[in-house]
Amino acid sequence: MSQPTYSLTMRVHIPASVGMLGRVMEAIGDTGGQVGGVDIVRSGKDAITRDITIYARDEEHGESIARAVRQVEGVEVESLTDRVFLSHAGGKIGMENRVPVVTRDDLSMAYTPGVARVCMAIHHDFEQAWEYTIKGSSVMVVSDGSSVVGQGDLGPEAALPALEAKCAFLHTLAGIDAFPLPIDLRDPAEIAEAVVLTSSVFAGIHLADISAPRCFEIQRLIAERLDIPVFHEDQQGTAVVVLAALTNGLAVAGTTLADATIVVAGTGPGGQAVARLLVAAGAGTVVVADSKGAIHAGRDDLDDDLSWIAANTNPAGVTGPVAEILKGAHAFVGLSAPGLLSAADVSAMAADPVVLALAMPEPEIRPSEAAGVAGVYATGRPDVPNQINSGLASPGIWRGALDCRATEINQAMTLAAATAIAETALEEGGLSATNVVPSIFNAQLVPNVAAAVRAAAEATGVARVTSGAAAAS
Amino acid sequence: MSQPTYSLTMRVHIPASVGMLGRVMEAIGDTGGQVGGVDIVRSGKDAITRDITIYARDEEHGESIARAVRQVEGVEVESLTDRVFLSHAGGKIGMENRVPVVTRDDLSMAYTPGVARVCMAIHHDFEQAWEYTIKGSSVMVVSDGSSVVGQGDLGPEAALPALEAKCAFLHTLAGIDAFPLPIDLRDPAEIAEAVVLTSSVFAGIHLADISAPRCFEIQRLIAERLDIPVFHEDQQGTAVVVLAALTNGLAVAGTTLADATIVVAGTGPGGQAVARLLVAAGAGTVVVADSKGAIHAGRDDLDDDLSWIAANTNPAGVTGPVAEILKGAHAFVGLSAPGLLSAADVSAMAADPVVLALAMPEPEIRPSEAAGVAGVYATGRPDVPNQINSGLASPGIWRGALDCRATEINQAMTLAAATAIAETALEEGGLSATNVVPSIFNAQLVPNVAAAVRAAAEATGVARVTSGAAAAS
Repeated sequence: MSQPTYSLTMRVHIPASVGMLGRVMEAIGDTGGQVGGVDIVRSGKDAITRDITIYARDEEHGESIARAVRQVEGVEVESLTDRVFLSHAGGKIGMENRVPVVTRDDLSMAYTPGVARVCMAIHHDFEQAWEYTIKGSSVMVVSDGSSVVGQGDLGPEAALPALEAKCAFLHTLAGIDAFPLPIDLRDPAEIAEAVVLTSSVFAGIHLADISAPRCFEIQRLIAERLDIPVFHEDQQGTAVVVLAALTNGLAVAGTTLADATIVVAGTGPGGQAVARLLVAAGAGTVVVADSKGAIHAGRDDLDDDLSWIAANTNPAGVTGPVAEILKGAHAFVGLSAPGLLSAADVSAMAADPVVLALAMPEPEIRPSEAAGVAGVYATGRPDVPNQINSGLASPGIWRGALDCRATEINQAMTLAAATAIAETALEEGGLSATNVVPSIFNAQLVPNVAAAVRAAAEATGVARVTSGAAAAS
Repeated sequence: MSQPTYSLTMRVHIPASVGMLGRVMEAIGDTGGQVGGVDIVRSGKDAITRDITIYARDEEHGESIARAVRQVEGVEVESLTDRVFLSHAGGKIGMENRVPVVTRDDLSMAYTPGVARVCMAIHHDFEQAWEYTIKGSSVMVVSDGSSVVGQGDLGPEAALPALEAKCAFLHTLAGIDAFPLPIDLRDPAEIAEAVVLTSSVFAGIHLADISAPRCFEIQRLIAERLDIPVFHEDQQGTAVVVLAALTNGLAVAGTTLADATIVVAGTGPGGQAVARLLVAAGAGTVVVADSKGAIHAGRDDLDDDLSWIAANTNPAGVTGPVAEILKGAHAFVGLSAPGLLSAADVSAMAADPVVLALAMPEPEIRPSEAAGVAGVYATGRPDVPNQINSGLASPGIWRGALDCRATEINQAMTLAAATAIAETALEEGGLSATNVVPSIFNAQLVPNVAAAVRAAAEATGVARVTSGAAAAS
């Protein structure tokens, strides 16, 4: 299967004689390229110009494929286009108008003098902004660029393509008007301040690609001051999808969350959030480990967040490295580093263990090594079944939160989202080792999650509008 | 002519007999309402249901019209809908996707793993953000809500409908991705700081609805720290349109800018910016007045900005109130208060004077009083010829600035914009007292202004890309 990190379109001029296209394909295949599609651009008497989509490992690999094609006699390579860069050209998102502004009457209503009455209405009652502005559907997608898609601290500008992707995603899947706002700061308190001051137009704050432990403080500081949800995709989003995958994965293994021992490796945003949500969900035994081994109450190198984890997990106070504490465990959740686990480590777990190896771009244990030893295996990669991606959770959670104008996204809401995701996977393909989460494009996913999240928001009293009452839009 | 501050749709049930619609129209007209349009909703044997669009003075007036209609025998008023509020429901703008996100391959290119390469490219070269993100076309429309559409300090949330209108406008007329960002601060330095820190995603900063003199400092502080344009609509936008209107208006009066004496009343954002641009354009004699009368070098109550004006205008050092300094002047530009001028004041000006009475919602002198004494008369209102609106300038100026990725919008660019607007009016309707500016919907306006602004940017060395070189999108 392909993982098109580097995908290119090669425009080639091929002599119109039998077998020539086959020779070109052979040259691509022999060099390790994979053909995604072939289109005719121009068809002449002597030659045909075609666009060939090719998946390669990287730019250098793409070049070597092109060299091989050029060596096929009579074939000319007209151009090579980097499909990824092409798809990002000019940005992936933009604005649209919801009302016409093409006549003087339109203008009088949308702008002066009509608009003054709408401004005054909001001035007298701020809540009117939910009805009469973009606020009801808009979410700030914000980052300082300190932890960009597994590439580390790249700075705010460099985070933008990733933030735009999240916005495009929230819009396509859940109709949310998400706008990317990278912030050029590093101090948590200053970041929180900047977000709060520019938050008037938004119904929610979506934090992304912020490094730990700063992300915890930033989220807390913002949430303390705003009456709209502050959601960190890399924490809550990841935790919700992991909980869903564990729920179904443990069922495949014939056990339940309440009876299971689960080892979580990694104390970044995802690892800590997974641990907290597992505790809230009533998981049997949770043990969290960082690079120094199990987190336990006896360690003196823990900050406040990790101290909470020490106090609320690992009841037996086990110590030692991951390979040690993994023995007999029912599930492993890796949000740590490539290659952390060996097949032998997994073999030492309970029967048919659930292995969620979510390190990116390479998992804690590769598919080939996990085969035969893991009962359920999942990664963050799109080219293996069971892709664990926070994108399974975020659109539905935001849809549910905005539909009831929630003041926060609390644990009851994230737990409800996890249940809805797990159930959607069962509806989609039944209980199976290769179907612990649904497809991100399952049309029922967002509505299911949104309904569950909204119900939980209403039940916990954080919904501004309740079902039956008129909601916006 | 109508100025639909309050515009409503009345759904009425009218007996299907001859003359009944006429009686309803009569009731509306007798109560002072103006009918904008009539549509059939349902047509039955005994009765017809119609939607009637009515322009009224205010909500109370709308109610009294409805009462009058209800008194017509056999007629039922089913509902009254406030068209202005209806047109703002859910907001006037939203997001759209520019790339598909509907397959796993789309996702791999737009998001992980593909996006990481685009992020790295921008990390290594920030300028790549112009090519591969929304930055190339996005403008922050920012306000603290301290001076909202003539209603004063309403706060950031209440500014939102007005900011959205500006965004909708920039998008419809010039294809710009403008996002509204009200900021909840009052201190100029803090506002500037918040704008700078959140500016990474934007190609320009569009200030609006900020009170003077704070707006001057805010603009300066932001511009000092950013290498993208910082444009204040109420200053530069207004000044550009006023200069265009004066250029054509003085030609109607048979004189030129260089020979004219021009009195500017008002030292808010618009008044000061008009004075500065008139000086730069080489206007003959400019005298600016605030509520205390003429600004002259002998006054000791002037801040730095007004001191500059004292030093660069009013060469004869005239003193006294507007009525006094207006005697013999060729043009009046009012950005002050309703009713400042009488017909006698205008009669004391030079022959066929140009009177731009731009106070909102009511001008310095009403159309009926100006008739017969002013040679050229213009207001900010949509219901009188010659509507002077900064919206005539902003879309084209931004289009030109973004097309060449300008680092600033300088005086050469605003002067070029004014010339282009004046010329577009002449192309549209020839030189005439009722055509000193073009229609805001003139399809040539934005391209004309953009081309002039881009050329001026290139000539003054503030364009990142020059004609011939490849620009974004």
